[in-house]
Amino acid sequence: MAALDTVLAKIDANLESALGRLFKLVEIPSISTDPAYAGDCTKAAEWLAAELNSIGCEASVRPTAGHPMIVGQAKAKRPDVPHVLFYGHYDVQPPDPLDLWETPPFEPRIAETKTGKQIVGRGVADDKGQLMTFLEACRAFKETGGLPCHITFFLEGEEETGSPSLPAFLAENAAELKADMALVCDTGMWDKETPAITIMLRGLVLEEVVIHAASRDLHSGIFGGAAVNPIHVLARIIAGLHDDKGRVTLPGFYNGVTELPEEIAEQWRALRLRGSDFLGGVGLSVPAGEQGRDILEMVWSRPTCDVNGILGGYTGKGSKTVLPAQASAKFSFRLVGSQDPDKIAGAFRAFVKESLPADCRAEFISHGASGALQLPFSSQALSLARRALEAEWGKEPVLAGCGGSIPVVGAFKQDLGMDTLMIGFGLEDDRMHSPNEKYELSSFHKGTRSWARVLNALAL
Amino acid sequence: MAALDTVLAKIDANLESALGRLFKLVEIPSISTDPAYAGDCTKAAEWLAAELNSIGCEASVRPTAGHPMIVGQAKAKRPDVPHVLFYGHYDVQPPDPLDLWETPPFEPRIAETKTGKQIVGRGVADDKGQLMTFLEACRAFKETGGLPCHITFFLEGEEETGSPSLPAFLAENAAELKADMALVCDTGMWDKETPAITIMLRGLVLEEVVIHAASRDLHSGIFGGAAVNPIHVLARIIAGLHDDKGRVTLPGFYNGVTELPEEIAEQWRALRLRGSDFLGGVGLSVPAGEQGRDILEMVWSRPTCDVNGILGGYTGKGSKTVLPAQASAKFSFRLVGSQDPDKIAGAFRAFVKESLPADCRAEFISHGASGALQLPFSSQALSLARRALEAEWGKEPVLAGCGGSIPVVGAFKQDLGMDTLMIGFGLEDDRMHSPNEKYELSSFHKGTRSWARVLNALAL
Repeated sequence: MAALDTVLAKIDANLESALGRLFKLVEIPSISTDPAYAGDCTKAAEWLAAELNSIGCEASVRPTAGHPMIVGQAKAKRPDVPHVLFYGHYDVQPPDPLDLWETPPFEPRIAETKTGKQIVGRGVADDKGQLMTFLEACRAFKETGGLPCHITFFLEGEEETGSPSLPAFLAENAAELKADMALVCDTGMWDKETPAITIMLRGLVLEEVVIHAASRDLHSGIFGGAAVNPIHVLARIIAGLHDDKGRVTLPGFYNGVTELPEEIAEQWRALRLRGSDFLGGVGLSVPAGEQGRDILEMVWSRPTCDVNGILGGYTGKGSKTVLPAQASAKFSFRLVGSQDPDKIAGAFRAFVKESLPADCRAEFISHGASGALQLPFSSQALSLARRALEAEWGKEPVLAGCGGSIPVVGAFKQDLGMDTLMIGFGLEDDRMHSPNEKYELSSFHKGTRSWARVLNALAL
Repeated sequence: MAALDTVLAKIDANLESALGRLFKLVEIPSISTDPAYAGDCTKAAEWLAAELNSIGCEASVRPTAGHPMIVGQAKAKRPDVPHVLFYGHYDVQPPDPLDLWETPPFEPRIAETKTGKQIVGRGVADDKGQLMTFLEACRAFKETGGLPCHITFFLEGEEETGSPSLPAFLAENAAELKADMALVCDTGMWDKETPAITIMLRGLVLEEVVIHAASRDLHSGIFGGAAVNPIHVLARIIAGLHDDKGRVTLPGFYNGVTELPEEIAEQWRALRLRGSDFLGGVGLSVPAGEQGRDILEMVWSRPTCDVNGILGGYTGKGSKTVLPAQASAKFSFRLVGSQDPDKIAGAFRAFVKESLPADCRAEFISHGASGALQLPFSSQALSLARRALEAEWGKEPVLAGCGGSIPVVGAFKQDLGMDTLMIGFGLEDDRMHSPNEKYELSSFHKGTRSWARVLNALAL
């Protein structure tokens, strides 16, 4: 452990220069969605490749149809250590609305607050500050003797636009990118003092349905009472998808959904998060999901069915006495455990078809399907990372779920056969995607130290 | 009867110029529900006032809080003849969806079909073509010696939006508008060869509901499973409004709904209309209304509840994993017998409020409410009109119900104490409110002749 102490001391000594490097990266306005900033995206990629080379990594900028990727390889001194892939993204959201920023978004600064120092600027939390915690940990290893693991660095510049170039790039460079496991630093902590490891991501099935009835829109005075109304048909389908206890009624829907291991259930209960705390910020107070479930289960470990959009008939101002020829809705299912996305989509379509009255037909459009991802509870890397984080923060890390999807993690599993350890130091109030985005200085400093501990632990 | 023959011959001679006048009116896009077309509504009103003045009527455009009314007075040569009020409306429905029109909706044309010539354009059947049959009959009388009855013309421009300005206008101008009876040309024939007189009209209650939930749109990954979804709430409300037998579930909804007199029930049965016949033209086959009712009852003498439009969340291309802050729907109730519109609206709002889960609130917008109406079966005018129509068409007219509402007929009864004779020449396949709306040339021509016969009969 003497070696680790040396690395941690180096990280502490490097803090000022590390902040200077982060500021340089934040100053590059690498806004991926706006073509006007394509040059800045390339500049950020080149800056990162140079940064990686400066810590002994063989890194290069790889062009794509969109913004470039960076791939770099660095070897540990010892050959018999794990090989990890580290993923991050250098692109950022547009800073609009500009007038709400207290200082210019691409002129990073340290802000003093009552609760400590914060780094302020576009991208400091999402994801430049986070990815630099990992690079700074690697720099400290390099400056004190060498890396403890073999590391492949993989940084992209299209995360904020849905990573359009990612699938093809993974497929074409699979051999180069494959490692024993992936590390992703794009998630958050439980709170400012409590670290978290995200071990489950919900999957997502996206289905659009169009209910077709009459061959044209009808006058409700002439046909009302006789003609089937596709809005009613759709409403009955939607209403029939949940029972009175908030459970989804599709046959087989809960196949593959298991109860949490008692250890995790106990940990979540101990967090004592009330539904009203979770929902209060958006004007709600009562959890509307499955009865008998805690709020964290509802959003992290239980599957859902939601309608994200519905449209039918006349929706302009005033009224129109029309019986529409069709009505449509967009459904999304959040999946957990080993729920099979294709079976869920199939059960949904069968349910819709069985719900159709005479003279109606359903048209289905898939907008994608992906299963849930779960890091095996028994994973040795998970155990090692938990102990490493606890050593840094003095608190057991929360083993968290994430209700949304992180597509690259799914791609690593499906295409490269790798599990991913998701560790990040963002906070709920970091104003990601909003004006005055910030990243706690403690997240940056202790995050860097955390990665040093995790890499060290994985190599033992 | 020689005088009548002269009038009928004049109508025949005028047909081409009459069509030209109708086209001018149809070319004005007087869409009452869309504020962008307010100027066109006024233009249509001014055009009609000028038209009335050109046939010797003293007519003027009367401003209202909404679209203007037209009132005109024309005297018969003989003083001791009945005084009738003729009502029509110059406003039309929006033409959407525009891409389904074969030719632009406000560029009327004559289409040649296997079964005869048709006039095509928005409003040709509802109600511009119909009201012009009456005006053209009056023109022919004027050009051949004078009108047989005293006539008050009363044309409005808000019929398609529930006639919001009508009640106040009738109250303020009651003395000027009061006549012995009213004539309304906004109804249909039984079929292309068989005329009809409409003796019952369903009422209409129009209610819009907005369900509000969270204070902003939410990410369904973060909040899905915990936050209430207003689309689901709305779907449950809609689904709960009918039972499994197609009856409306609102408490007290059927108060005031009575069974048909046997004489009328027998006439309707004798028409031997099957549900599949009625619905076949619009791609349907099975009546979807109250179980155990004949098709004509469903659409003429039974009340309904329908959703005419629904909107919530993301409805563009692809998918968006959003839980919307709100969802809305437009409801319409068709009323019969002595159902009380205010009580129906009240029962509906109470039902919605009782259906709301925690954290949701409902916003209500009324788009109008009117009761059902029935013409006394013993009316002498009804007998005279039946004989006049039989003379023109060679067939006994059907005494019909009408599923749609004509609120003004209720107002004439309630506010001015007048019964209304509803005679019109629309057909079921006229595509009213839909793309490619049409009006048979025979309806326009023989309709004009029919009005000449009816006016002549009423004066004898």
